[in-house]
Amino acid sequence: MKELKKISVIGMGLLGASISLAALRAFPSVLVCGFSHRKQTRQKARRLQVAGEIAESLEECVRDADVIIFATPIRTFPVLFGQIRPFVKHSCVITDVGSTKLMAHRWAREIFNSNIAYVGSHPIAGSEKRGVDFARDDLLAGANCILTKTPSTRLSALRLLKKFWGRLGCRVLVMTPQRHDRIFGHISHLPHIAAAALVNANSADILPFAGKGFLDTSRVASGPANIWTDILLTNPRNCIQGIDRLIAELKKIRTAISQQDERKIEFLLEKARTKREKMIAAKLKQKELF
Amino acid sequence: MKELKKISVIGMGLLGASISLAALRAFPSVLVCGFSHRKQTRQKARRLQVAGEIAESLEECVRDADVIIFATPIRTFPVLFGQIRPFVKHSCVITDVGSTKLMAHRWAREIFNSNIAYVGSHPIAGSEKRGVDFARDDLLAGANCILTKTPSTRLSALRLLKKFWGRLGCRVLVMTPQRHDRIFGHISHLPHIAAAALVNANSADILPFAGKGFLDTSRVASGPANIWTDILLTNPRNCIQGIDRLIAELKKIRTAISQQDERKIEFLLEKARTKREKMIAAKLKQKELF
Repeated sequence: MKELKKISVIGMGLLGASISLAALRAFPSVLVCGFSHRKQTRQKARRLQVAGEIAESLEECVRDADVIIFATPIRTFPVLFGQIRPFVKHSCVITDVGSTKLMAHRWAREIFNSNIAYVGSHPIAGSEKRGVDFARDDLLAGANCILTKTPSTRLSALRLLKKFWGRLGCRVLVMTPQRHDRIFGHISHLPHIAAAALVNANSADILPFAGKGFLDTSRVASGPANIWTDILLTNPRNCIQGIDRLIAELKKIRTAISQQDERKIEFLLEKARTKREKMIAAKLKQKELF
Repeated sequence: MKELKKISVIGMGLLGASISLAALRAFPSVLVCGFSHRKQTRQKARRLQVAGEIAESLEECVRDADVIIFATPIRTFPVLFGQIRPFVKHSCVITDVGSTKLMAHRWAREIFNSNIAYVGSHPIAGSEKRGVDFARDDLLAGANCILTKTPSTRLSALRLLKKFWGRLGCRVLVMTPQRHDRIFGHISHLPHIAAAALVNANSADILPFAGKGFLDTSRVASGPANIWTDILLTNPRNCIQGIDRLIAELKKIRTAISQQDERKIEFLLEKARTKREKMIAAKLKQKELF
Protein backbone atom coordinates (compact mmCIF):
# COMPACT_ATOMS: atom_id res chain seq x y z
CA MET A 1 0.00 0.00 0.00
CA LYS A 2 3.09 2.20 -0.02
CA GLU A 3 2.33 3.31 -3.56
CA LEU A 4 -0.91 5.00 -2.46
CA LYS A 5 -0.82 8.79 -2.53
CA LYS A 6 -4.43 9.80 -3.05
CA ILE A 7 -7.77 8.14 -2.31
CA SER A 8 -10.93 9.81 -3.63
CA VAL A 9 -14.41 9.23 -2.27
CA ILE A 10 -17.33 10.42 -4.40
CA GLY A 11 -20.50 10.89 -2.36
CA MET A 12 -20.53 12.09 1.23
CA GLY A 13 -23.56 10.23 2.57
CA LEU A 14 -23.27 8.12 5.71
CA LEU A 15 -21.30 5.36 3.99
CA GLY A 16 -19.05 7.56 1.81
CA ALA A 17 -18.19 9.88 4.69
CA SER A 18 -17.57 6.96 7.05
CA ILE A 19 -15.24 5.29 4.51
CA SER A 20 -13.45 8.61 4.05
CA LEU A 21 -13.06 9.03 7.81
CA ALA A 22 -11.85 5.45 8.26
CA ALA A 23 -9.33 5.85 5.40
CA LEU A 24 -8.07 9.07 7.01
CA ARG A 25 -7.29 7.11 10.19
CA ALA A 26 -5.94 3.99 8.44
CA PHE A 27 -3.69 5.81 5.96
CA PRO A 28 -2.31 8.87 7.71
CA SER A 29 0.20 9.63 4.96
CA VAL A 30 -2.32 9.41 2.10
CA LEU A 31 -4.45 12.32 0.86
CA VAL A 32 -8.12 11.37 1.31
CA CYS A 33 -10.20 13.62 -0.91
CA GLY A 34 -13.98 13.75 -0.78
CA PHE A 35 -16.64 15.18 -3.06
CA SER A 36 -20.37 15.72 -2.99
CA HIS A 37 -22.40 17.33 -5.76
CA ARG A 38 -24.30 19.28 -3.08
CA LYS A 39 -22.62 22.45 -1.87
CA GLN A 40 -24.21 22.19 1.55
CA THR A 41 -22.87 18.65 2.02
CA ARG A 42 -19.38 19.75 0.95
CA GLN A 43 -19.48 22.49 3.59
CA LYS A 44 -20.65 20.08 6.28
CA ALA A 45 -18.02 17.52 5.28
CA ARG A 46 -15.34 20.20 5.61
CA ARG A 47 -16.63 21.36 8.95
CA LEU A 48 -16.78 17.77 10.25
CA GLN A 49 -13.34 17.04 8.72
CA VAL A 50 -14.43 13.67 7.35
CA ALA A 51 -11.73 13.93 4.64
CA GLY A 52 -8.30 15.51 4.34
CA GLU A 53 -9.70 17.69 1.60
CA ILE A 54 -13.13 18.29 0.09
CA ALA A 55 -12.86 19.07 -3.62
CA GLU A 56 -15.07 21.68 -5.27
CA SER A 57 -15.43 19.63 -8.47
CA LEU A 58 -15.50 16.01 -9.53
CA GLU A 59 -12.51 16.62 -11.79
CA GLU A 60 -10.45 18.07 -8.94
CA CYS A 61 -11.45 15.19 -6.69
CA VAL A 62 -10.38 12.36 -9.02
CA ARG A 63 -7.29 13.95 -10.60
CA ASP A 64 -4.14 11.98 -9.67
CA ALA A 65 -6.17 9.57 -7.53
CA ASP A 66 -4.80 6.05 -7.03
CA VAL A 67 -8.14 4.73 -5.78
CA ILE A 68 -11.57 6.16 -6.49
CA ILE A 69 -14.54 4.95 -4.45
CA PHE A 70 -18.06 5.72 -5.60
CA ALA A 71 -20.52 6.00 -2.72
CA THR A 72 -23.34 7.57 -4.73
CA PRO A 73 -26.66 5.97 -5.78
CA ILE A 74 -26.01 3.07 -8.19
CA ARG A 75 -27.77 4.61 -11.16
CA THR A 76 -25.55 7.69 -11.08
CA PHE A 77 -22.58 5.49 -12.11
CA PRO A 78 -22.91 5.59 -15.93
CA VAL A 79 -22.96 9.39 -15.96
CA LEU A 80 -20.24 9.81 -13.32
CA PHE A 81 -17.97 7.15 -14.90
CA GLY A 82 -18.23 9.08 -18.17
CA GLN A 83 -17.49 12.39 -16.45
CA ILE A 84 -14.34 11.21 -14.65
CA ARG A 85 -12.97 9.13 -17.55
CA PRO A 86 -10.83 11.93 -19.12
CA PHE A 87 -9.20 12.80 -15.78
CA VAL A 88 -8.32 9.41 -14.38
CA LYS A 89 -4.79 8.10 -14.64
CA HIS A 90 -4.17 4.69 -16.18
CA SER A 91 -2.98 3.03 -12.96
CA CYS A 92 -6.01 4.16 -10.98
CA VAL A 93 -8.29 1.57 -9.36
CA ILE A 94 -11.98 2.33 -9.38
CA THR A 95 -14.59 0.78 -7.14
CA ASP A 96 -18.04 1.52 -5.76
CA VAL A 97 -19.96 0.50 -2.66
CA GLY A 98 -23.37 -0.10 -4.22
CA SER A 99 -25.61 -2.95 -3.09
CA THR A 100 -25.87 -4.54 -6.56
CA LYS A 101 -22.83 -5.31 -8.65
CA LEU A 102 -23.73 -6.66 -12.09
CA MET A 103 -24.80 -3.34 -13.62
CA ALA A 104 -21.81 -1.51 -12.15
CA HIS A 105 -19.47 -4.02 -13.82
CA ARG A 106 -21.36 -3.65 -17.09
CA TRP A 107 -21.16 0.16 -17.01
CA ALA A 108 -17.48 0.12 -16.05
CA ARG A 109 -16.70 -2.24 -18.93
CA GLU A 110 -18.64 -0.12 -21.41
CA ILE A 111 -17.20 3.22 -20.30
CA PHE A 112 -13.66 2.42 -19.19
CA ASN A 113 -13.07 -0.55 -21.54
CA SER A 114 -9.98 -2.19 -20.14
CA ASN A 115 -8.09 1.09 -19.79
CA ILE A 116 -8.96 1.55 -16.15
CA ALA A 117 -9.20 -1.17 -13.52
CA TYR A 118 -12.62 -1.57 -12.00
CA VAL A 119 -13.52 -3.90 -9.10
CA GLY A 120 -16.88 -3.97 -7.33
CA SER A 121 -17.07 -3.57 -3.53
CA HIS A 122 -19.99 -4.16 -1.21
CA PRO A 123 -19.20 -3.45 2.41
CA ILE A 124 -22.13 -4.83 4.42
CA ALA A 125 -22.45 -1.90 6.76
CA GLY A 126 -24.94 0.81 7.32
CA SER A 127 -27.32 2.30 9.77
CA GLU A 128 -30.85 3.59 9.76
CA LYS A 129 -29.26 7.03 10.16
CA ARG A 130 -28.44 8.94 7.00
CA GLY A 131 -26.02 11.63 5.92
CA VAL A 132 -22.57 12.97 6.62
CA ASP A 133 -23.57 14.09 10.14
CA PHE A 134 -23.64 10.50 11.32
CA ALA A 135 -20.30 9.46 9.75
CA ARG A 136 -18.23 7.22 12.02
CA ASP A 137 -14.70 5.95 11.47
CA ASP A 138 -15.69 2.54 12.91
CA LEU A 139 -18.79 1.92 10.79
CA LEU A 140 -16.88 -0.68 8.76
CA ALA A 141 -15.00 -2.32 11.60
CA GLY A 142 -15.80 -6.03 11.64
CA ALA A 143 -18.08 -5.79 8.60
CA ASN A 144 -17.99 -8.24 5.72
CA CYS A 145 -16.93 -6.62 2.44
CA ILE A 146 -17.59 -8.51 -0.76
CA LEU A 147 -15.37 -7.78 -3.75
CA THR A 148 -16.66 -8.73 -7.18
CA LYS A 149 -14.48 -9.70 -10.09
CA THR A 150 -14.94 -11.00 -13.62
CA PRO A 151 -12.45 -12.89 -15.83
CA SER A 152 -11.15 -9.51 -17.08
CA THR A 153 -10.58 -7.98 -13.63
CA ARG A 154 -6.99 -6.77 -13.15
CA LEU A 155 -5.59 -8.88 -10.30
CA SER A 156 -3.33 -6.13 -8.97
CA ALA A 157 -6.46 -3.98 -8.51
CA LEU A 158 -8.20 -6.78 -6.65
CA ARG A 159 -5.16 -7.25 -4.39
CA LEU A 160 -4.98 -3.54 -3.63
CA LEU A 161 -8.67 -3.35 -2.71
CA LYS A 162 -8.41 -6.46 -0.54
CA LYS A 163 -5.72 -4.72 1.46
CA PHE A 164 -7.61 -1.42 1.48
CA TRP A 165 -10.82 -2.86 2.96
CA GLY A 166 -8.81 -5.11 5.28
CA ARG A 167 -7.07 -2.06 6.73
CA LEU A 168 -10.49 -0.48 7.32
CA GLY A 169 -11.36 -3.49 9.49
CA CYS A 170 -13.42 -5.48 6.99
CA ARG A 171 -13.43 -9.24 6.42
CA VAL A 172 -13.03 -9.54 2.64
CA LEU A 173 -14.76 -12.13 0.42
CA VAL A 174 -14.37 -12.37 -3.37
CA MET A 175 -17.01 -13.61 -5.83
CA THR A 176 -18.48 -12.90 -9.24
CA PRO A 177 -21.02 -10.08 -9.60
CA GLN A 178 -23.55 -12.70 -10.78
CA ARG A 179 -23.23 -14.68 -7.57
CA HIS A 180 -23.24 -11.51 -5.47
CA ASP A 181 -26.47 -10.24 -7.01
CA ARG A 182 -28.14 -13.62 -6.71
CA ILE A 183 -27.24 -13.92 -3.02
CA PHE A 184 -28.23 -10.38 -2.09
CA GLY A 185 -31.32 -10.46 -4.29
CA HIS A 186 -32.55 -13.27 -2.07
CA ILE A 187 -31.13 -12.42 1.34
CA SER A 188 -31.48 -8.63 1.30
CA HIS A 189 -33.57 -7.26 -1.57
CA LEU A 190 -36.36 -9.84 -1.22
CA PRO A 191 -36.83 -9.16 2.53
CA HIS A 192 -37.10 -5.47 1.71
CA ILE A 193 -39.76 -6.18 -0.91
CA ALA A 194 -41.58 -8.52 1.51
CA ALA A 195 -41.50 -5.93 4.30
CA ALA A 196 -42.84 -3.17 2.05
CA ALA A 197 -45.57 -5.45 0.68
CA LEU A 198 -46.52 -6.48 4.24
CA VAL A 199 -46.95 -2.85 5.33
CA ASN A 200 -48.89 -1.99 2.17
CA ALA A 201 -51.13 -5.04 2.65
CA ASN A 202 -52.33 -3.70 6.01
CA SER A 203 -54.95 -1.00 6.26
CA ALA A 204 -54.47 2.07 8.42
CA ASP A 205 -57.04 0.94 11.01
CA ILE A 206 -55.03 -2.24 11.65
CA LEU A 207 -51.54 -0.76 12.03
CA PRO A 208 -52.07 0.82 15.50
CA PHE A 209 -52.29 -2.73 16.87
CA ALA A 210 -48.84 -3.67 15.59
CA GLY A 211 -46.65 -5.36 18.18
CA LYS A 212 -42.97 -6.25 18.31
CA GLY A 213 -43.41 -9.02 15.74
CA PHE A 214 -44.84 -6.72 13.10
CA LEU A 215 -42.32 -3.99 13.88
CA ASP A 216 -39.37 -6.34 13.39
CA THR A 217 -40.79 -8.03 10.32
CA SER A 218 -41.38 -4.65 8.66
CA ARG A 219 -38.35 -2.75 9.96
CA VAL A 220 -36.37 -2.63 6.72
CA ALA A 221 -39.36 -1.04 4.95
CA SER A 222 -38.37 2.20 6.70
CA GLY A 223 -35.23 2.38 4.52
CA PRO A 224 -34.87 5.22 2.00
CA ALA A 225 -37.18 4.59 -0.97
CA ASN A 226 -34.88 6.18 -3.57
CA ILE A 227 -31.86 4.03 -2.68
CA TRP A 228 -33.98 0.88 -2.64
CA THR A 229 -35.57 1.79 -5.96
CA ASP A 230 -32.04 1.91 -7.36
CA ILE A 231 -31.26 -1.50 -5.90
CA LEU A 232 -34.42 -3.19 -7.22
CA LEU A 233 -34.01 -1.61 -10.66
CA THR A 234 -30.43 -2.84 -10.97
CA ASN A 235 -31.17 -6.40 -9.79
CA PRO A 236 -34.45 -7.16 -11.56
CA ARG A 237 -33.97 -10.82 -12.44
CA ASN A 238 -33.02 -11.97 -8.96
CA CYS A 239 -35.71 -9.83 -7.31
CA ILE A 240 -38.38 -11.26 -9.60
CA GLN A 241 -37.14 -14.79 -9.05
CA GLY A 242 -37.18 -14.16 -5.30
CA ILE A 243 -40.74 -12.77 -5.39
CA ASP A 244 -41.89 -15.80 -7.36
CA ARG A 245 -40.34 -18.16 -4.83
CA LEU A 246 -41.85 -16.24 -1.93
CA ILE A 247 -45.29 -16.30 -3.54
CA ALA A 248 -44.92 -20.06 -4.12
CA GLU A 249 -44.10 -20.57 -0.42
CA LEU A 250 -47.01 -18.35 0.66
CA LYS A 251 -49.32 -20.41 -1.54
CA LYS A 252 -48.12 -23.64 0.09
CA ILE A 253 -49.10 -22.28 3.53
CA ARG A 254 -52.36 -20.89 2.10
CA THR A 255 -53.33 -24.30 0.71
CA ALA A 256 -52.46 -26.04 3.97
CA ILE A 257 -54.60 -23.55 5.95
CA SER A 258 -57.57 -23.72 3.59
CA GLN A 259 -57.46 -27.54 3.74
CA GLN A 260 -57.07 -27.40 7.56
CA ASP A 261 -54.05 -29.64 7.00
CA GLU A 262 -52.51 -29.51 10.46
CA ARG A 263 -49.51 -31.69 9.63
CA LYS A 264 -48.63 -29.67 6.53
CA ILE A 265 -48.88 -26.31 8.36
CA GLU A 266 -46.73 -27.57 11.21
CA PHE A 267 -44.26 -29.09 8.73
CA LEU A 268 -43.84 -25.76 6.89
CA LEU A 269 -43.52 -23.69 10.07
CA GLU A 270 -41.12 -26.19 11.65
CA LYS A 271 -39.01 -26.25 8.46
CA ALA A 272 -38.65 -22.46 8.62
CA ARG A 273 -37.94 -22.52 12.36
CA THR A 274 -35.25 -25.18 12.01
CA LYS A 275 -33.58 -23.46 9.03
CA ARG A 276 -33.49 -20.17 10.88
CA GLU A 277 -32.16 -21.72 14.09
CA LYS A 278 -29.39 -23.48 12.12
CA MET A 279 -28.48 -20.17 10.48
CA ILE A 280 -28.32 -18.42 13.86
CA ALA A 281 -26.23 -21.24 15.34
CA ALA A 282 -23.76 -21.01 12.42
CA LYS A 283 -23.51 -17.24 12.86
CA LEU A 284 -22.90 -17.55 16.58
CA LYS A 285 -20.18 -20.10 15.89
CA GLN A 286 -18.50 -17.74 13.43
CA LYS A 287 -18.86 -14.94 15.97
CA GLU A 288 -20.98 -12.91 13.57
CA LEU A 289 -23.58 -12.64 16.32
CA PHE A 290 -23.12 -12.32 20.06
CA MET B 1 -62.84 -7.91 43.48
CA LYS B 2 -63.64 -8.58 47.12
CA GLU B 3 -65.83 -11.52 46.13
CA LEU B 4 -62.83 -13.39 44.66
CA LYS B 5 -61.71 -16.40 46.67
CA LYS B 6 -60.08 -18.68 44.12
CA ILE B 7 -58.42 -18.11 40.74
CA SER B 8 -57.46 -21.17 38.68
CA VAL B 9 -54.88 -21.17 35.93
CA ILE B 10 -54.85 -24.18 33.58
CA GLY B 11 -51.52 -24.56 31.78
CA MET B 12 -48.17 -23.73 33.37
CA GLY B 13 -46.25 -22.58 30.31
CA LEU B 14 -44.48 -19.20 30.30
CA LEU B 15 -47.72 -17.22 30.00
CA GLY B 16 -49.86 -19.32 32.36
CA ALA B 17 -47.17 -19.43 35.05
CA SER B 18 -46.47 -15.69 34.70
CA ILE B 19 -50.19 -14.89 35.05
CA SER B 20 -50.36 -17.15 38.08
CA LEU B 21 -47.34 -15.48 39.64
CA ALA B 22 -48.68 -11.98 38.90
CA ALA B 23 -52.09 -12.92 40.38
CA LEU B 24 -50.34 -14.23 43.49
CA ARG B 25 -48.73 -10.81 43.99
CA ALA B 26 -51.81 -8.76 42.99
CA PHE B 27 -54.35 -10.70 45.09
CA PRO B 28 -52.60 -11.78 48.28
CA SER B 29 -55.80 -12.93 49.96
CA VAL B 30 -57.01 -15.05 47.03
CA LEU B 31 -56.07 -18.70 46.46
CA VAL B 32 -54.27 -18.96 43.12
CA CYS B 33 -54.37 -22.56 41.98
CA GLY B 34 -52.41 -23.86 38.98
CA PHE B 35 -52.58 -27.05 36.98
CA SER B 36 -50.55 -28.68 34.23
CA HIS B 37 -51.32 -32.05 32.64
CA ARG B 38 -47.61 -32.88 32.85
CA LYS B 39 -46.41 -34.21 36.18
CA GLN B 40 -42.91 -32.80 35.68
CA THR B 41 -44.32 -29.31 35.07
CA ARG B 42 -46.51 -29.54 38.18
CA GLN B 43 -43.43 -30.44 40.22
CA LYS B 44 -41.43 -27.55 38.78
CA ALA B 45 -44.32 -25.15 39.30
CA ARG B 46 -44.50 -26.19 42.95
CA ARG B 47 -40.77 -25.84 43.42
CA LEU B 48 -40.78 -22.40 41.80
CA GLN B 49 -43.90 -21.43 43.78
CA VAL B 50 -45.57 -19.82 40.77
CA ALA B 51 -48.99 -20.49 42.39
CA GLY B 52 -50.38 -20.75 45.92
CA GLU B 53 -51.26 -24.34 45.15
CA ILE B 54 -50.66 -26.74 42.29
CA ALA B 55 -53.58 -29.16 41.89
CA GLU B 56 -53.05 -32.79 41.00
CA SER B 57 -56.14 -32.93 38.78
CA LEU B 58 -58.11 -30.61 36.55
CA GLU B 59 -61.19 -31.24 38.69
CA GLU B 60 -59.39 -30.27 41.88
CA CYS B 61 -58.00 -27.15 40.19
CA VAL B 62 -61.31 -25.74 38.95
CA ARG B 63 -63.56 -26.75 41.87
CA ASP B 64 -64.95 -23.68 43.70
CA ALA B 65 -63.00 -21.36 41.38
CA ASP B 66 -64.37 -17.84 40.81
CA VAL B 67 -62.18 -17.28 37.75
CA ILE B 68 -60.66 -19.95 35.50
CA ILE B 69 -57.97 -18.92 33.02
CA PHE B 70 -56.99 -21.30 30.22
CA ALA B 71 -53.37 -20.90 29.14
CA THR B 72 -53.14 -24.09 27.11
CA PRO B 73 -52.93 -24.45 23.30
CA ILE B 74 -56.14 -23.16 21.67
CA ARG B 75 -57.23 -26.47 20.23
CA THR B 76 -57.26 -28.14 23.65
CA PHE B 77 -60.21 -25.93 24.66
CA PRO B 78 -63.15 -28.06 23.42
CA VAL B 79 -61.95 -31.11 25.33
CA LEU B 80 -60.93 -29.18 28.46
CA PHE B 81 -64.15 -27.13 28.51
CA GLY B 82 -66.09 -30.39 28.40
CA GLN B 83 -63.97 -31.91 31.19
CA ILE B 84 -64.39 -29.02 33.63
CA ARG B 85 -68.07 -28.37 32.89
CA PRO B 86 -69.47 -30.68 35.63
CA PHE B 87 -67.26 -29.15 38.33
CA VAL B 88 -67.61 -25.42 37.66
CA LYS B 89 -69.93 -23.35 39.80
CA HIS B 90 -72.58 -21.18 38.11
CA SER B 91 -71.05 -17.84 39.13
CA CYS B 92 -67.61 -18.75 37.76
CA VAL B 93 -66.03 -16.63 35.02
CA ILE B 94 -64.04 -18.49 32.40
CA THR B 95 -61.48 -16.99 30.09
CA ASP B 96 -58.47 -18.04 28.03
CA VAL B 97 -55.34 -16.29 26.78
CA GLY B 98 -55.16 -17.73 23.26
CA SER B 99 -54.10 -15.63 20.28
CA THR B 100 -57.32 -16.23 18.32
CA LYS B 101 -60.75 -15.69 19.83
CA LEU B 102 -63.55 -16.65 17.46
CA MET B 103 -63.22 -20.42 17.88
CA ALA B 104 -62.85 -20.14 21.68
CA HIS B 105 -66.14 -18.20 21.84
CA ARG B 106 -67.81 -20.80 19.62
CA TRP B 107 -66.60 -23.72 21.75
CA ALA B 108 -67.58 -21.96 24.99
CA ARG B 109 -71.10 -21.30 23.63
CA GLU B 110 -71.51 -24.90 22.48
CA ILE B 111 -70.21 -26.49 25.66
CA PHE B 112 -71.25 -24.13 28.45
CA ASN B 113 -74.41 -22.76 26.76
CA SER B 114 -75.29 -19.71 28.81
CA ASN B 115 -74.84 -21.50 32.11
CA ILE B 116 -71.29 -20.29 32.63
CA ALA B 117 -69.90 -16.87 31.75
CA TYR B 118 -67.13 -16.94 29.16
CA VAL B 119 -65.10 -13.90 28.01
CA GLY B 120 -62.06 -14.08 25.73
CA SER B 121 -58.74 -12.55 26.81
CA HIS B 122 -55.65 -11.89 24.75
CA PRO B 123 -52.81 -10.34 26.76
CA ILE B 124 -50.24 -9.18 24.19
CA ALA B 125 -47.22 -10.42 26.08
CA GLY B 126 -44.69 -13.14 25.60
CA SER B 127 -41.07 -13.89 25.11
CA GLU B 128 -38.97 -16.09 22.90
CA LYS B 129 -38.33 -18.09 26.08
CA ARG B 130 -40.70 -20.92 26.88
CA GLY B 131 -41.87 -22.79 29.93
CA VAL B 132 -42.50 -22.38 33.62
CA ASP B 133 -38.79 -21.83 34.35
CA PHE B 134 -38.95 -18.38 32.76
CA ALA B 135 -42.16 -17.24 34.49
CA ARG B 136 -42.01 -13.62 35.66
CA ASP B 137 -44.54 -11.70 37.72
CA ASP B 138 -44.00 -8.60 35.54
CA LEU B 139 -44.45 -10.22 32.12
CA LEU B 140 -47.85 -8.54 31.78
CA ALA B 141 -46.94 -5.16 33.24
CA GLY B 142 -47.71 -2.48 30.66
CA ALA B 143 -49.05 -4.98 28.12
CA ASN B 144 -52.25 -4.46 26.16
CA CYS B 145 -54.89 -7.04 26.97
CA ILE B 146 -57.81 -7.39 24.60
CA LEU B 147 -61.08 -8.75 25.97
CA THR B 148 -63.57 -10.14 23.49
CA LYS B 149 -67.31 -10.14 23.98
CA THR B 150 -70.40 -11.04 21.98
CA PRO B 151 -74.00 -9.84 22.44
CA SER B 152 -74.54 -12.72 24.90
CA THR B 153 -71.51 -11.99 27.09
CA ARG B 154 -72.43 -11.51 30.76
CA LEU B 155 -71.46 -7.92 31.57
CA SER B 156 -70.56 -8.68 35.18
CA ALA B 157 -67.99 -11.20 33.90
CA LEU B 158 -66.54 -8.61 31.53
CA ARG B 159 -66.30 -6.07 34.37
CA LEU B 160 -64.56 -8.58 36.62
CA LEU B 161 -61.98 -9.50 33.99
CA LYS B 162 -61.34 -5.83 33.18
CA LYS B 163 -60.44 -5.30 36.82
CA PHE B 164 -58.43 -8.54 36.98
CA TRP B 165 -56.17 -7.73 34.02
CA GLY B 166 -55.96 -4.10 35.11
CA ARG B 167 -54.62 -5.20 38.50
CA LEU B 168 -52.00 -7.29 36.69
CA GLY B 169 -50.77 -4.09 35.00
CA CYS B 170 -52.48 -4.47 31.62
CA ARG B 171 -54.15 -1.79 29.54
CA VAL B 172 -57.53 -3.34 28.68
CA LEU B 173 -59.37 -2.97 25.36
CA VAL B 174 -62.73 -4.57 24.52
CA MET B 175 -63.88 -5.70 21.08
CA THR B 176 -65.76 -8.50 19.32
CA PRO B 177 -63.92 -11.77 18.59
CA GLN B 178 -64.53 -11.13 14.88
CA ARG B 179 -62.71 -7.81 14.99
CA HIS B 180 -59.95 -9.28 17.18
CA ASP B 181 -59.24 -12.13 14.79
CA ARG B 182 -59.30 -9.84 11.75
CA ILE B 183 -56.82 -7.43 13.34
CA PHE B 184 -54.44 -10.10 14.61
CA GLY B 185 -54.78 -12.17 11.46
CA HIS B 186 -53.30 -9.21 9.62
CA ILE B 187 -50.91 -7.67 12.14
CA SER B 188 -49.55 -10.82 13.78
CA HIS B 189 -50.44 -14.07 12.01
CA LEU B 190 -49.67 -12.75 8.51
CA PRO B 191 -46.16 -11.53 9.48
CA HIS B 192 -45.50 -14.98 10.93
CA ILE B 193 -46.60 -16.62 7.68
CA ALA B 194 -44.52 -14.14 5.66
CA ALA B 195 -41.44 -14.72 7.79
CA ALA B 196 -41.73 -18.51 7.51
CA ALA B 197 -42.30 -18.29 3.74
CA LEU B 198 -39.27 -15.98 3.41
CA VAL B 199 -37.00 -18.44 5.20
CA ASN B 200 -38.37 -21.38 3.20
CA ALA B 201 -37.90 -19.43 -0.07
CA ASN B 202 -34.15 -19.19 0.56
CA SER B 203 -31.81 -22.06 -0.15
CA ALA B 204 -29.26 -23.23 2.39
CA ASP B 205 -26.30 -21.83 0.41
CA ILE B 206 -27.77 -18.33 0.63
CA LEU B 207 -28.63 -18.18 4.34
CA PRO B 208 -25.04 -17.83 5.66
CA PHE B 209 -24.98 -14.37 4.03
CA ALA B 210 -27.98 -13.16 6.03
CA GLY B 211 -27.45 -9.76 7.63
CA LYS B 212 -29.39 -7.79 10.23
CA GLY B 213 -32.19 -7.04 7.75
CA PHE B 214 -32.91 -10.70 7.05
CA LEU B 215 -32.58 -11.65 10.72
CA ASP B 216 -35.16 -9.06 11.78
CA THR B 217 -37.55 -9.76 8.93
CA SER B 218 -37.50 -13.49 9.72
CA ARG B 219 -37.27 -13.33 13.54
CA VAL B 220 -40.82 -14.44 14.31
CA ALA B 221 -40.32 -17.58 12.20
CA SER B 222 -38.31 -18.94 15.16
CA GLY B 223 -41.51 -19.16 17.21
CA PRO B 224 -42.83 -22.59 18.28
CA ALA B 225 -44.38 -24.37 15.29
CA ASN B 226 -47.07 -26.20 17.27
CA ILE B 227 -48.46 -23.06 18.87
CA TRP B 228 -48.46 -21.21 15.54
CA THR B 229 -50.12 -24.15 13.81
CA ASP B 230 -52.91 -23.80 16.38
CA ILE B 231 -53.19 -20.09 15.65
CA LEU B 232 -53.32 -20.46 11.87
CA LEU B 233 -55.81 -23.34 12.07
CA THR B 234 -58.17 -21.33 14.28
CA ASN B 235 -58.03 -18.17 12.17
CA PRO B 236 -58.14 -19.54 8.62
CA ARG B 237 -60.30 -16.91 6.91
CA ASN B 238 -58.27 -13.91 8.04
CA CYS B 239 -54.95 -15.65 7.38
CA ILE B 240 -56.01 -16.56 3.86
CA GLN B 241 -57.31 -13.06 3.21
CA GLY B 242 -54.02 -11.66 4.51
CA ILE B 243 -51.95 -13.98 2.31
CA ASP B 244 -54.00 -12.96 -0.71
CA ARG B 245 -53.45 -9.28 0.03
CA LEU B 246 -49.74 -9.83 0.57
CA ILE B 247 -49.42 -11.73 -2.72
CA ALA B 248 -51.31 -8.92 -4.49
CA GLU B 249 -48.85 -6.34 -3.08
CA LEU B 250 -45.86 -8.52 -4.03
CA LYS B 251 -47.22 -8.76 -7.56
CA LYS B 252 -47.52 -4.97 -7.79
CA ILE B 253 -43.83 -4.61 -6.96
CA ARG B 254 -42.97 -7.51 -9.28
CA THR B 255 -44.77 -5.84 -12.20
CA ALA B 256 -43.08 -2.49 -11.52
CA ILE B 257 -39.64 -4.17 -11.45
CA SER B 258 -40.21 -6.21 -14.61
CA GLN B 259 -41.39 -3.07 -16.40
CA GLN B 260 -38.43 -1.10 -14.97
CA ASP B 261 -41.06 1.38 -13.80
CA GLU B 262 -38.92 3.55 -11.54
CA ARG B 263 -41.76 5.85 -10.44
CA LYS B 264 -44.02 2.95 -9.53
CA ILE B 265 -41.32 1.14 -7.54
CA GLU B 266 -40.43 4.29 -5.64
CA PHE B 267 -44.12 5.05 -5.06
CA LEU B 268 -44.73 1.60 -3.53
CA LEU B 269 -41.61 1.68 -1.35
CA GLU B 270 -42.28 5.25 -0.23
CA LYS B 271 -45.89 4.37 0.59
CA ALA B 272 -44.69 1.55 2.86
CA ARG B 273 -42.00 3.74 4.40
CA THR B 274 -44.43 6.56 5.17
CA LYS B 275 -47.10 4.23 6.58
CA ARG B 276 -44.55 2.57 8.85
CA GLU B 277 -43.08 5.87 10.03
CA LYS B 278 -46.57 7.19 10.86
CA MET B 279 -47.27 4.00 12.82
CA ILE B 280 -44.00 4.39 14.77
CA ALA B 281 -44.73 8.09 15.45
CA ALA B 282 -48.19 7.22 16.79
CA LYS B 283 -46.73 4.51 19.03
CA LEU B 284 -44.07 6.85 20.37
CA LYS B 285 -46.77 9.42 21.12
CA GLN B 286 -48.80 6.83 23.02
CA LYS B 287 -45.64 5.77 24.83
CA GLU B 288 -45.95 2.23 23.48
CA LEU B 289 -42.37 2.56 22.23
CA PHE B 290 -39.43 4.30 23.84
